[in-house]
This record gives sequence, C-alpha cells and structure tokens, in this order.
Amino acid sequence: MRKRLAVEFLGTFWLTFGGCGSAILAAAFPELGIGFAGVALAFGLTVLTMAYAVGSISGGHFNPAVTIGLWAGNRVDVKDVVPYVFAQVIGAITAAAALYFIASGKPGFEVGGFAANGYGDLSPGKFSLSAALAVEFIATFFFLFIIMRVTSPSAVHGFAPLAIGLTLTLIHLISIPVTNTSVNPARSTGPALFAGAAYMSQLWLFWLAPIAGAIMGALFAKKFDTRATAQP
Amino acid sequence: MRKRLAVEFLGTFWLTFGGCGSAILAAAFPELGIGFAGVALAFGLTVLTMAYAVGSISGGHFNPAVTIGLWAGNRVDVKDVVPYVFAQVIGAITAAAALYFIASGKPGFEVGGFAANGYGDLSPGKFSLSAALAVEFIATFFFLFIIMRVTSPSAVHGFAPLAIGLTLTLIHLISIPVTNTSVNPARSTGPALFAGAAYMSQLWLFWLAPIAGAIMGALFAKKFDTRATAQP
Amino acid sequence: MRKRLAVEFLGTFWLTFGGCGSAILAAAFPELGIGFAGVALAFGLTVLTMAYAVGSISGGHFNPAVTIGLWAGNRVDVKDVVPYVFAQVIGAITAAAALYFIASGKPGFEVGGFAANGYGDLSPGKFSLSAALAVEFIATFFFLFIIMRVTSPSAVHGFAPLAIGLTLTLIHLISIPVTNTSVNPARSTGPALFAGAAYMSQLWLFWLAPIAGAIMGALFAKKFDTRATAQP
Amino acid sequence: MRKRLAVEFLGTFWLTFGGCGSAILAAAFPELGIGFAGVALAFGLTVLTMAYAVGSISGGHFNPAVTIGLWAGNRVDVKDVVPYVFAQVIGAITAAAALYFIASGKPGFEVGGFAANGYGDLSPGKFSLSAALAVEFIATFFFLFIIMRVTSPSAVHGFAPLAIGLTLTLIHLISIPVTNTSVNPARSTGPALFAGAAYMSQLWLFWLAPIAGAIMGALFAKKFDTRATAQP
Repeated sequence: MRKRLAVEFLGTFWLTFGGCGSAILAAAFPELGIGFAGVALAFGLTVLTMAYAVGSISGGHFNPAVTIGLWAGNRVDVKDVVPYVFAQVIGAITAAAALYFIASGKPGFEVGGFAANGYGDLSPGKFSLSAALAVEFIATFFFLFIIMRVTSPSAVHGFAPLAIGLTLTLIHLISIPVTNTSVNPARSTGPALFAGAAYMSQLWLFWLAPIAGAIMGALFAKKFDTRATAQP
Repeated sequence: MRKRLAVEFLGTFWLTFGGCGSAILAAAFPELGIGFAGVALAFGLTVLTMAYAVGSISGGHFNPAVTIGLWAGNRVDVKDVVPYVFAQVIGAITAAAALYFIASGKPGFEVGGFAANGYGDLSPGKFSLSAALAVEFIATFFFLFIIMRVTSPSAVHGFAPLAIGLTLTLIHLISIPVTNTSVNPARSTGPALFAGAAYMSQLWLFWLAPIAGAIMGALFAKKFDTRATAQP
Repeated sequence: MRKRLAVEFLGTFWLTFGGCGSAILAAAFPELGIGFAGVALAFGLTVLTMAYAVGSISGGHFNPAVTIGLWAGNRVDVKDVVPYVFAQVIGAITAAAALYFIASGKPGFEVGGFAANGYGDLSPGKFSLSAALAVEFIATFFFLFIIMRVTSPSAVHGFAPLAIGLTLTLIHLISIPVTNTSVNPARSTGPALFAGAAYMSQLWLFWLAPIAGAIMGALFAKKFDTRATAQP
Repeated sequence: MRKRLAVEFLGTFWLTFGGCGSAILAAAFPELGIGFAGVALAFGLTVLTMAYAVGSISGGHFNPAVTIGLWAGNRVDVKDVVPYVFAQVIGAITAAAALYFIASGKPGFEVGGFAANGYGDLSPGKFSLSAALAVEFIATFFFLFIIMRVTSPSAVHGFAPLAIGLTLTLIHLISIPVTNTSVNPARSTGPALFAGAAYMSQLWLFWLAPIAGAIMGALFAKKFDTRATAQP
C-alpha cells in the first residue's frame, strides 16, 4: 500500500506540475507561447507517461474523481478510496507549491489565477455556473466511461495509458475556455490554495461535478462489462 | 444490438461534442486559442479514444458514411445500417444541443456558424461548391480505404483506432478551410440544426459526398482483401 | 505487382494531397491557420496512416528516395525500383492536380509557390543552396537510417509506421523554413509542375540530395543488420 | 561497443539537430512559426524515433544524465559511462556545427542564443538561477523515474520509446520559458559553444542539475524494481 500511495502522490504531482506548470509558465509567452493546445497536450502527456510508468503499481489514477468513479465501477476497493484521495490531494498541493517557487523566480511575477479553475468571472471565457457544471459533468462522465472500457479485460493490451492520456488532452481542447478544465478535484485544489479566496470559494464545483460525472460514467460503463469480476 | 446502438449514440455524441465543441468554444479564443490544428487534433482524438473504448462492441463507426461504406465493403450487415445511422444522427443532435447549452452560457453569445459545414459563402475560406464536393469525396474515399485496410485480418493488432483517429485529424488539417470538414453526415446534421436555414440548405452535400466517397473507398479496398470472409 | 504499384500510387497521392494540401489550404489561414507545425503533423500522418494501411502490401514507401535507399540497403529488389518510382511520381502529380482543382475554387486564388520546394529566393526563409543541400541530405540520411532500423527483424512489431511517420513530422518541424522540406523527390515534382519554371529549375536538388542521403543512411544502417537476409 | 557508441553519437546528433534545429530555424518564423510547442514536439520525437531505431543496440540514452542516472539505477555498467557520455557530447557538438552551417545560410544570420540553455538574463523569460535549478532538477528526476519504470521488466513491451519521447515533449512544454530546457548536458554543451562565453559560463548548471535529478529519480525508481537483476 505504501508503494501505491507513493506513486499516486508522485503521479498527481506530475499531473499538476506538468499541466498547470505549462499553463502558468508557457501558455502565454509572447509570440512563441504554447496556448491552450499546448496545455491540453501537456495535461494528457502527464497521465500518458505516468500511467505507463506506474499503472501496474497503483492503477495510475492521479485524480480523486477517477478513484471514486472506479470504486463505483467495482474496480477499486472501498478501503483504498480515502488513502488514494489523500495522497492525490497532497501531491497536487506540493506541485502547486513547487510551481509557485519556480514562477516567482521571474521578475515582476504576480500570482494571478495560477491555473486555478473557475466559473463566472473566474472562467477564462466568463462562462456561467451552469455551463461550468455541464461541461465538467459531461467531460468526466466520458473520461470514466473510456477509462473503464480501455482497462476492461476485453481491451487491447498496452494501449490504455495512450487512450486515457489522450482523452484528457481532448477534454482540455474543448473546455479550457469554460472552466480552465478540472475533471480532477486534486488538480483544482492545489492551485486554488495559491490563487486566493475567490478561487477557493468556487472549489466546491470542481469536487462536485467531476465526482458526479465520474460515478455516472463508471456505472454506465459497468453495464458493458462481460465478466463481473473484471479487474483494472 | 441495444448495446451496440448505445455505444454508437455515445461515440457520435463524443465526436460531435469534442470536435465541434473545441471549434466553438476554444478555436478562436483571443491569443491562446487552439486554431484549426487544435480542432483537427480534437476530432481525431474523439475517434481514437472511443474506438479503443467501444470498438469491440459496435466496431466504433460514429459516422453514417463509415457504416454505409463498411456495408459496401462487406464488413457490416445490411440490417445494421439503418439502426446505426439513426443512433449516430440522434447522438450528434444531442451533442449539438449540449454544446448549445454550454456555449450560450457565455455573455454575448451568438450562435454564428456553430461549427456547421458549408460551401460558397458558408465555407470558412469561401471555397466553391465543386471544391467542397471534391475535397469531401476524396477525403472520405481515403478515410474508408484506410479503415478497411487497418481493420483487415492482415493488419497489426491494436493499432487500428490510432490509425483511424489520426486519419481524421489529418483530414481536418487539410480541409477545415474548405468545408469546415464533414466526412460525416451525422456530425454535419447536428450543428446545422442550430446554425439555421442557410446551413440546412447545404446539408445535402455533406450526406452525398461523404457517402459516395466512402462507398468507393471501401469497394476499392475490398480488392485487396485476401480472405473473402474478413470481419471487422 | 499491380497491387503494390496501385498502393504506392495511392500512398504518394495521399502524402502529397495531405501534406502539400494542408500547406496550401490551411497553413496561412488568417488567425486560425495551422502554421508549419500543422503541416509537419499532416505530412507525418499521411505516412503513418497509409503505412498502417498498405505497408503489408508494398512496404509503404511513397517516396523514390525511400525505394532507392531500401534498394541500397538490400531490402528492395532492383527490378522493383523503376516501377515503384514511376507509380510514386504519377501519384504525386495526380495529387497536385487535385489540389489545384480544389485550391482554385477559392475566389482570388493565385498559384504562388504551391508548396513546391526551393532554395535561395524560393526558400521560405531565403536559405542558400548549400544550406538546402545540407539539410536535405542530413534529414534523408536519418530518415532512411530510422526506416531501415525500425523495419529490421530485431525491431518491436507494429510500431514501424508510427516511428516512420513521426520521423517525417520531425523533419518538417526542422526544415520547412529552409527548403519547404522535400526528402521526397516525388512530393517535390508534383507541386513544382504547377508552381512554374523557376521551381522546376531547382527540382534537381530535391532529387539529388534526398537520394544521396537515403543511400548513405541505408548503407550505414545495413552495418547494424544482424541477419543478412533481413526483409522489410 | 563500437556499434553502441556509434548509435549514441548518432542519436545525440539527432536530438540536438532536431530539437535545437527546430528552435533555431523554425520556432520564430514570421506568422507560421512552430513556437515552443513545436520545439517541444521536435525534441520528443527525436528520442521517440531514435529509441525505436537503436534502443535495442545501446539502450538509446542520447543524454549523459540518462546514462549516469541509469548507472545509479543499476541498469548500466560503470565502464560504459565515460565512453557513452563522450560519444554523446561529441554528437551534440557535431550537430551544433551542422546547424551553424545551415543557419548561417540565411541572409542576415546572427548566432544569438543559438538555442543554448541559460538562467537569469539568458533565460527566455528571465527566470532566476534558483528557478532554473529547481525546474531542471524536478524535470530530470521525473524523466529518469519514468525511464526506469517503462523499461522495467514489468512494463508493457514496445511502448517505452513512445512514453520516454513524450515525457521529453512534456518537459519542454513546461520549462522552455525558464531555461530553454536542458535535462541533457550534451544538448546544452553543443549550442553553448557557438552561443558564446556568457552561455558557456552558465553551462555548469546544465550539467549539475540534470545529473543530480537523474540520480535521485533513478534511485527512487529502483525501490519499485521487483527483480534485483532487472536489465534495461
């Protein structure tokens, strides 16, 4: 169990450091910045690379919504849920702290939104609360549906990390303008702590909507499981 | 059959929600927008991810031209064609409705082209009707040729969703400026219902050209089948 | 043999149609254009997708430099070289004609460089003849070295089309500003016929440098072949 | 041994030629340039493609930090370290010389930073020495952790070059603005020789931080090795 929590910590650090780091450090660099598309690729690659690295140890969740969704889908034992979520949140907070240290090494640094998630005035495109709820719910529904399917016993061996990572890239390509894209409560919590009270007051949505979407997506996928004893 | 139609509905929802959603929400975001290249990547990743997820259930078509082409190529039973196409079109319309709900959550929202396909005045680059016909026919010809080949028994196991998804990305990299890229009558129908009468009046081309190209591409690929009883 | 030439024709059509098409139609679209990076991705994906589709039939060369290089590397029979090259050149010319038809469907169309290759005044960045020779020679040297290696019997099964296609993307990411990137005499010939006499007068370099680099790269890779009887 | 050193030379040439070449020649091309995202993709693809090509010969390090890290992780014999590092550095210098020849073929060429790494005034975003140390250490820590894991006996066969190459892309998406991204002392040394004394005086950091991070990352990964006799 210690090894599994260590890699969940490490993986969620990597997801937050890589995804939010590319957003904070590189997205808006004058002329040459990577934009939302580069950030979308970075988020996906954090999961793709770490899932190949440690998927065989912990399953490679790096995301409380994934852990809770896979519990709903009978792929995760209930006693693992709280420790996993705890390790993930600590990993994301540690990554945000590391990013704060690096980003503040730039002359004239201001923390700004710090890649935190938000709706209304804190949405990149000023999208409403209901739009934010809808996009986070739908995206996490499909994220868990796909995760459940590509890790089912009938799936082609070896391609799950590729498919799951690229699903996260796709989700970001759609939804960064709406909420800065969460689908991951740990990734939302780390930067929000540094971005300040306004972002913290909206954090509930980025726990609620991804977890609700994840549970529904996993339950729906479970209907397609041909063997009741399927393991991740 | 119910499971297969459910995943065709879901997959076409994902294709339209992800591909058209990235175009509507993220392509033209000031400074940081993902542009046509990001939209091309998004369309391809919808198919790549969902084909890994549900290809083993329904074949993973998500596109009436693919279903009809694969029927012409002897890979799909004639009695599946109408139900598949129906599920796909309903999936695309539902996705367009979900996108409308999300997009309208932005202050000052105007529906505009809503990522619908068009030619002449409704083409992104004002390309003519004949240019639109040519590019849609050629692209769908190659799309089905490649799909038939990479799902043939002689193909390397496991890479078909990757190759098919990236073919769709490639097609978008070429042809978004000409028609906004269809090669998929269901994807064309959903947004057109919201974009209005002018787009609806051009919808015929995005059924005709992709289906004609798909049938020709699949028939041509069939000549290379070494076993007459090849299954998808 | 007829089947092999048919797919070499088709594959080189796809390479030229997709790569040069994305350059002509989509690279410089105002605000949303795909730029050189999108064109680089498109070229790579033409080879990646078609090599998965028809690699088992013809080897999937789509490029006279590849065919000649693989002959030097003992992977291709001498009697195949001329028919392959002929099919490839015809495929590229046909693709350029199709692109001309589509591109001319835009009001105010001017043929311009038509994605042809060039050096000096015809280089995108005005690079000299010797810079052009160097970059084309080096890039094709590595292209053939990698192709020889990833199709050798010791290579991991199934990943060759991925590695080869992404090598072509990488080569374009480096060298579009220098020569518009050839490494493929067929791809150079098709557009040059439409771009006019100035481009035609420079075409020799895009036969000479890629073929010289290809032969050297394949000969060097051959030293690492452990079995003299290696087959593509 | 000669073959292994030859491919380490060749691979590091390719990494430096492709990664730094795309930065020097194509990143800032007016309107159509590939930006930091294109450079990030190029660096990753150099490793992805060459690791598929020669990983079975030398392990495919192309980077002194990787060689030294894998030695710390018990995957490389101590007697290989110095020859490997030597071959890598010579490869990177040769590539920088080739790039200098090509780049100087453009009228008005000035060497500028020549894609060398730097901090403070020589950082693309003027990031401080401590930010540079942190980002290089963290990135190389994760780079080696992932390399150790995806080449461990428990990893899925065939996907290591994909995962390792895309890790390098991800690292560049995060950190180009901070240090121009090293994580590779050889890649840092080649261009610095051409960029001049100011860059050379900072070169120590791009040997120190990557090697320290690599050793720590590999030692940490070793804790997860289930078989003490694991081979690369």
